[in-house]
Amino acid sequence: MAKVKKQPRPKAITPKGFRDYFGAEVTQRTEMLHAIAGVYHRYGFDALESSAVETVEALGKFLPDVDRPNEGVFAWQETDESGQGDWMALRYDLTAPLARVYAQHRNDLPTPYRRYAMGPVWRNEKPGPGRYRQFYQCDADTVGTASMAADAEICAMLSDTLETVGIPRGDYLVRVNNRKVLNGVLEAMGLEEGAASRDDVLRTIDKFDKVGEEGVRQLLTKGRLDASGAYIDGVGLSEEQAAPVLAFLTSKAADTAGTLENLRAAVGDSKIGAEGIAELEQIGALLAAGGYGPDRIEIDPSVVRGLGYYTGPVFEAELTFEILDEKGRKRQFGSVAGGGRYDGLVKRFTGQEVPAVGVSIGVDRLLAALREKGRLATQPTGPVVVTVMDRDRMADYQAMVTELRNAGIRAEVYLGNPKNFGNQLKYADKRHSPVAVIEGGDEKENGVVQIKDLILGAKIAENATLEEWKERPSQFEVPRTDLVAKVREILESQG
Amino acid sequence: MAKVKKQPRPKAITPKGFRDYFGAEVTQRTEMLHAIAGVYHRYGFDALESSAVETVEALGKFLPDVDRPNEGVFAWQETDESGQGDWMALRYDLTAPLARVYAQHRNDLPTPYRRYAMGPVWRNEKPGPGRYRQFYQCDADTVGTASMAADAEICAMLSDTLETVGIPRGDYLVRVNNRKVLNGVLEAMGLEEGAASRDDVLRTIDKFDKVGEEGVRQLLTKGRLDASGAYIDGVGLSEEQAAPVLAFLTSKAADTAGTLENLRAAVGDSKIGAEGIAELEQIGALLAAGGYGPDRIEIDPSVVRGLGYYTGPVFEAELTFEILDEKGRKRQFGSVAGGGRYDGLVKRFTGQEVPAVGVSIGVDRLLAALREKGRLATQPTGPVVVTVMDRDRMADYQAMVTELRNAGIRAEVYLGNPKNFGNQLKYADKRHSPVAVIEGGDEKENGVVQIKDLILGAKIAENATLEEWKERPSQFEVPRTDLVAKVREILESQG
Repeated sequence: MAKVKKQPRPKAITPKGFRDYFGAEVTQRTEMLHAIAGVYHRYGFDALESSAVETVEALGKFLPDVDRPNEGVFAWQETDESGQGDWMALRYDLTAPLARVYAQHRNDLPTPYRRYAMGPVWRNEKPGPGRYRQFYQCDADTVGTASMAADAEICAMLSDTLETVGIPRGDYLVRVNNRKVLNGVLEAMGLEEGAASRDDVLRTIDKFDKVGEEGVRQLLTKGRLDASGAYIDGVGLSEEQAAPVLAFLTSKAADTAGTLENLRAAVGDSKIGAEGIAELEQIGALLAAGGYGPDRIEIDPSVVRGLGYYTGPVFEAELTFEILDEKGRKRQFGSVAGGGRYDGLVKRFTGQEVPAVGVSIGVDRLLAALREKGRLATQPTGPVVVTVMDRDRMADYQAMVTELRNAGIRAEVYLGNPKNFGNQLKYADKRHSPVAVIEGGDEKENGVVQIKDLILGAKIAENATLEEWKERPSQFEVPRTDLVAKVREILESQG
Repeated sequence: MAKVKKQPRPKAITPKGFRDYFGAEVTQRTEMLHAIAGVYHRYGFDALESSAVETVEALGKFLPDVDRPNEGVFAWQETDESGQGDWMALRYDLTAPLARVYAQHRNDLPTPYRRYAMGPVWRNEKPGPGRYRQFYQCDADTVGTASMAADAEICAMLSDTLETVGIPRGDYLVRVNNRKVLNGVLEAMGLEEGAASRDDVLRTIDKFDKVGEEGVRQLLTKGRLDASGAYIDGVGLSEEQAAPVLAFLTSKAADTAGTLENLRAAVGDSKIGAEGIAELEQIGALLAAGGYGPDRIEIDPSVVRGLGYYTGPVFEAELTFEILDEKGRKRQFGSVAGGGRYDGLVKRFTGQEVPAVGVSIGVDRLLAALREKGRLATQPTGPVVVTVMDRDRMADYQAMVTELRNAGIRAEVYLGNPKNFGNQLKYADKRHSPVAVIEGGDEKENGVVQIKDLILGAKIAENATLEEWKERPSQFEVPRTDLVAKVREILESQG
């Protein structure tokens, strides 16, 4: 008889770049998204959940003449009768699917269409520390209107959202800029669309966050010695030519009117520049009418992140409180959301230009910020554990947990092997249980139960003197009929 | 110059077998899952969200010696430096990932481990009407305990869950059976594991739901003429041999004690049968101790669905109220959840047997049931729409929606082209808006606004006589300062 080859055991591992989320990691994110959805709903936005899978054609992120879709997405080829079918892929963001959905359903959807979407997206990228190949996005977009009221609304909504989830006013700022103003500046410099050094200038501007005003000045002109000692070649502009760019980046004044005045000087008589400034002016006026002052939302031309992608106003929500970075240095928490106005979204499908504006919140970053602010419990409370002293009286213990649960108290009976009582307390500890309930034979006979305050018990074990220990007992014997009342009392005393 | 070939426009379509969910379809599911998570949490279950992507090896649903994973899952091959990497796949359920997670993290997880999981799963199957390739599952499992208290607990939790989401007591029943009892019956018949006709008998039992007692009797013996007129061959047992199977299937009595008595007769002196009956007895006693009577959970040996997959107790939640099927005939709504005890889950990875029991709720079926029961609004209310009479006064309208939103009222300003006022009202209609707000130049001058009750307006337009129309105005002129109060009054009058 042929020997049957033993199948090796599969490895129990999360695929590379993916991770699992346990307990509070899941529920805290769910609660935060729930709160955000409440704000979006109040603003008239409707939920949309598109399929996680799209045709590669609809996603549009692949080279048309290769066999296999480009890196960046997870894709596979369907097999139909011919053995060769369409290429499918997991969505890599929530905007590309919105474009497909809007193009497909535009006759049934209201115009403008305000929609929000929350869910995982997938990127086939090299994973790194804290960078995963599946992560959550939370987007809101208004499709089908060019009105600046849509842009202003999204900025206001972003401000409300941050305060609703627990970032207090003063700890964040929504900063607004406009891509058109930058285009105006370039026009004023004589760098029309297509000019050779235009891209170099744009790339340099993108470094403003990192290298600051003086760094950008050097990079636009002769070049710069960077921190590592390497010499970075400059774009080769003269000081005079570089001046409008620097004027643009540093044009933020004490108030909106002052900032706009500075921008007017920077764009000279560029038509597109003037248009961009008028748009910022409108947004400013609409926000002021809604009571959103510069303590929450401000015009700030130094916002350059993502300027390349957008076609009009852009905005970014920054958290301004300080944290310690991995090297123990203080720094601002930084950006947790960004967005802006973009064109061509639906045009790919229909040929018609459809103006749209949207925002995307970095779900994990915002959760991390709430943790920093102490808004999320680091160690959420586990269930009350009813221990098992007598295996044959499981029904008695079951009745106890049912009473507790019916009173709205999170509770469970110990379901492991009850032989070793120490293991039951170890289990309660692992579950971060606030209270353990004990009913042995004697207690049963006398109609009482023992209730252990595990939080207080742990504190006493850690700190207390013998005197304190005696004065503050952490275990109570109460009549069986008082079980729910006493457990509730202890839970309330624990806060 | 070579002619640039024009890229054809991509098609805006949902991939075959997938769909998009809009508005209330999303939020109603979210709310239901939120309510279910609340019950699971109260029972001490912890959330787990595993990655949507698993290695095909960990999922274990593929033939080891073919190039491409089997049908049934969406799978693709990673490309590493060598151009050939691991096969990956989208999860097809939430149980296989649980096995992987438990095997991977078992040293850090509490034992027993109670976990719940909710989320989409993907099946690469031929789509059909109402059958999609992406759908939600909602599972709870207890891993690492053989105690029947775990099984009883999950049945009780299922009962609580149904009532919490809005299925009243009396409209559902959780029915419990045990695979071991059936094995005992087969043993009593002399059909040991491996006996030739054993599989035929099991297949026949699975038809009990469809063909009933007499049908099963015929199929076990000589055969049966089915509804289409075709003759189905029988298994070939004698009437005497078939008797224990029929006794098993029809052993439900007026109470649990009676049912168990009947089962004892059916299994004769089979050891495994006696074990199964003892387990059912334990479950019955634990549920009785928790107050879960036969009006909610009952022992019912006619539950056969899925018996093949499970190794011990099995259960199913059925909704007992009647609906009309597609042909207008009355029938019971039927099953919305099922589960049971299974082995070998973690063993694939670790070699050690880990007992587990779990339940899976059919999210879409349960949502459909709630819709049938009128527990979900078929037409949820849209936002209050502030119309735009004067494009230059957008800031005024923006201030109005901000006031309304700050008062917790869902509201939006019309962001489309305001030129045609009729379009604005059509938009409000499409959005199912309850109220429209109008402030033209005259109103502005007089410090008033017009508020239209759109729900009442629609009713009047449909039904009312001219007299009623006059008596019940649906449009009100109020001072601008009364905007929020009047809108709230109208919303409250609409219920």
